Amino acid sequence: MGEEKSKRRTTVKINGQSYVISGQADVSHIKEVAKFVDEKMKKMRNVNPYLDSTQLAVLAAVNISDEYLRLKKQQESIKKDGEK
Amino acid sequence: MGEEKSKRRTTVKINGQSYVISGQADVSHIKEVAKFVDEKMKKMRNVNPYLDSTQLAVLAAVNISDEYLRLKKQQESIKKDGEK
Repeated sequence: MGEEKSKRRTTVKINGQSYVISGQADVSHIKEVAKFVDEKMKKMRNVNPYLDSTQLAVLAAVNISDEYLRLKKQQESIKKDGEK
Repeated sequence: MGEEKSKRRTTVKINGQSYVISGQADVSHIKEVAKFVDEKMKKMRNVNPYLDSTQLAVLAAVNISDEYLRLKKQQESIKKDGEK
């Protein structure tokens, strides 16, 4: 299937550390995602300057998941309404 | 406005560490969010067992943000179509 061939490797910087992200997504999308996480972590650090990098990353993940799950539920309820 | 009064503090465990999450959301929603992040980190660790906790949390955040931003764009394009 040549799956490996179609996978790109993009290096991004998040919270001062480099990460290699591999996937089929556009480089521009991967860079947008990385910037989004980096900014969330920065915001978390501004609010909680005493947290370490792991705690910052976990709390950023919690924050993003909160938004994601809310949006998902909202979309599912719109779909259900449409089916009525 | 009594804003402080309506804020709940919920303790959750993510990747073996305890986190206090404060906000106005239901305890059940906060627990669901924490479970979601914990499971993402577990999946990340299964794929990349050599990563440390910070890297796991950052990559989990990247993964979740990818899904979130895709869903958001999808929803925005549905909204635009509806306005046509």
